[in-house]
Formats: sequence, C-alpha cells, structure tokens
Amino acid sequence: MIAAIVMNSIWSTRKADSLIGLKFVSVEVLGGIDAGRLLIAADTIGAGVGERVLVCNGSSARKMLGREDVPIDAVIIGIIDEDCKL
Amino acid sequence: MIAAIVMNSIWSTRKADSLIGLKFVSVEVLGGIDAGRLLIAADTIGAGVGERVLVCNGSSARKMLGREDVPIDAVIIGIIDEDCKL
Amino acid sequence: MIAAIVMNSIWSTRKADSLIGLKFVSVEVLGGIDAGRLLIAADTIGAGVGERVLVCNGSSARKMLGREDVPIDAVIIGIIDEDCKL
Amino acid sequence: MIAAIVMNSIWSTRKADSLIGLKFVSVEVLGGIDAGRLLIAADTIGAGVGERVLVCNGSSARKMLGREDVPIDAVIIGIIDEDCKL
Amino acid sequence: MIAAIVMNSIWSTRKADSLIGLKFVSVEVLGGIDAGRLLIAADTIGAGVGERVLVCNGSSARKMLGREDVPIDAVIIGIIDEDCKL
Repeated sequence: MIAAIVMNSIWSTRKADSLIGLKFVSVEVLGGIDAGRLLIAADTIGAGVGERVLVCNGSSARKMLGREDVPIDAVIIGIIDEDCKL
Repeated sequence: MIAAIVMNSIWSTRKADSLIGLKFVSVEVLGGIDAGRLLIAADTIGAGVGERVLVCNGSSARKMLGREDVPIDAVIIGIIDEDCKL
Repeated sequence: MIAAIVMNSIWSTRKADSLIGLKFVSVEVLGGIDAGRLLIAADTIGAGVGERVLVCNGSSARKMLGREDVPIDAVIIGIIDEDCKL
Repeated sequence: MIAAIVMNSIWSTRKADSLIGLKFVSVEVLGGIDAGRLLIAADTIGAGVGERVLVCNGSSARKMLGREDVPIDAVIIGIIDEDCKL
Repeated sequence: MIAAIVMNSIWSTRKADSLIGLKFVSVEVLGGIDAGRLLIAADTIGAGVGERVLVCNGSSARKMLGREDVPIDAVIIGIIDEDCKL
C-alpha cells in the first residue's frame, strides 16, 4: 500500500457502466522518493479532501468492492489516524 | 488509476488475433512526478485526441472488456469532465 | 520482493472491515536506486521497528494471509538475518 | 502497454522447462519519461530487431500464449505500423 | 522480465512457513534507466553470484513454482548465456 493525501474529487460523466455510483478522488503519494506522485483511487470509505489515506493498488483493489467485474486498480482501504507518524 | 491525456491513435497491422477490432491510443500521464510518462491504452469509450481520461492498469484492465483472454494491461475507463481539477 | 527496513506502526481506525486485526507498518526500501521509497505493508510475522524485512508486493501478498478477500498489496514475508549482506 | 523498440535476441540455455521454444528479445521503452528503460519480452509474433512494438506487462502477458502455466510477465502483442506517430 | 545480475544469497530464519526450502538472492537490474535497482528473487534454477539472469515479476512468478499458495513476486526463470548481448 501507499500513504497518500486526498486532493480532489474526480468527475467523469462518460465512463464504464460498471463504475456508476463509485466515487473517485485524486491522491498524492506521501513520504519517500515517490512523494508527489498523483494517482486516482476509488473511495468507498468517505475520505475527505486533506485526509491521509492508505491506497491499495493492483488486482487487490477489486477485493475492496467485493466485485470482480469492475475495472479499477486503486482504492482507499483506510484513513490514517491523525496523530500517526509515517 | 492514472489521469492522462490522449495523444495519438496507434496503428498495428500485425498483432494478436484477439486484439482485432480494438482501438489503441497513446496517452501521456498528467500531474505529479510521473507527468510525461507515455503509455498505450485500449479505448472502448471513444476518447478523442486531447481529452483527459482515466486509465486503469494491470489485470483490472481486462475487466473493462468483459473478456479474460485478451492480452492488454491498460484501458480507458472514463473521460474526465472538462471543468474537473485533478 | 524488496528488502526494506521497518519504520513505524501505521494506525487506521476507520478502515475496511476485512482489515480489522491486521497490523500495518511503514517500510523504507533498502539498496539500489529505489532506496528511500516508502511503502505500507501488512505484518503477520511480528517485525520490529528497525528490522530489515522482505516485502512481497501485488496479488502474491494475499497468499501470505491465505485469504483472497483482503484488499492488501504488500506484506512482510520474512525478516532478513542480521548478518546477511544485501 | 508500452511502446518499445526491439534491441537484441536474448539467449538462455539454462531455463525453466515451460519456456523451451519461446523466443525472448530485449526491448527499450520509447517515448516519455520512461524512455530508455530496458525490458525482456517474449515474442510470438516474429518482431525484428529495430521494429517498434507494443509490449503487454503483468498477468495479461500470459493471455497472449493461451497458457496459464508459463512464468512470463511481458510479451509483444503487436508491431506498430511504420508511419504511426506515438 | 528484467535482466539482472545475482549479487548475494539472502538469509531469513524467521519467515512464512510456505517459504521454507526456497532459496532467495538479491539481484541488481542491468541495462537501461532502471540499472542499479535492487530486487530479491526466489531461485529454483541454481544461479550463481555474478551470473546474469532473467527475472519474472508479479503473479507470473508463482507459475515458476507450480504452486499458487506461495507469497513471492519475483523469481529467476533463466540464466542468460554468457556471450549474449542485452
């Protein structure tokens, strides 16, 4: 997983039918030499802009939705506690 | 997923039979420290050159086609709304 | 796999239900040009802060838990012996 | 996928039995900030040295062979037309 | 796949039970802009220190062992012939 900070909501009106109802956010990687990398992740937890989150990538991201038919490769799996040091 | 901009259509006359009928485009990653990375993605949505898109990578890309036998690892899953900030 | 050093425990109170009971740690990649990259990994071995570990990434990380439903993409699979040279 | 140029044939006498009969080539990534990265890909299409190709990575590479038991993670899926701009 | 050179044997006394009996080595990526990246790979072929090898990453690495339950993401699939140019 990576630690990242939520930047913006991402809106896509024209998209795959299987994505309807899913919320997407842009996140920026925190810490280490990858800091500043920008990813788009699905969010089913309700993370707010500015919150630090754990993002799971790859095929494991689909496990968060409990559906195997959705074309996503990144999802927020948790919100990092405010006082937690990376 | 990554946010990217569509650059060009990619033509390949000699290719795997399972790819016949699929459209391919080159896309350039937008935002963050990976900005400027070039990928080739399958496009089933009809994204135009210059449009900003969401690209899904890895095994999840095959879910967009609803077929497990196609050797692709990147696909456009949505077009980012014009007024959306990354 | 990558060789990494354990940095901190990562606490996430709001997270996916399937992650409850799993311990997470931040690790920093050791050696080579990726040295200094920060990842978050699940730990079922009980690695301590400062120990050098082997981290497995991607779908294979789920094999460590023996469960296919958990959205994780990185897990500690072993602790590198103290006198081992990378 | 990535666009790449075929560099050399790669010969490996001692290898996994399941790889016998497969041709391997080194390819160099073309375009963007990853230009110059070197990969080794399986080739079932017959790409020649100097040709530009589409390379599929990850689990999807196995789909090109129609076999799930082969340990490869990169395969050439098509040859980019000579007059095609990336 | 990547071309890499075998650096050292990696010893891990405390590790996942499913890894017992597997040999691990550190390898350094050869060629291109990723040259110098350090990975840890499982070795079932018997590659020696200083030999150039082909390393397969991701879920495909598990295919080399013929077991789906082992948490590894990188494995040596072949030894590159001595006189082969990358």
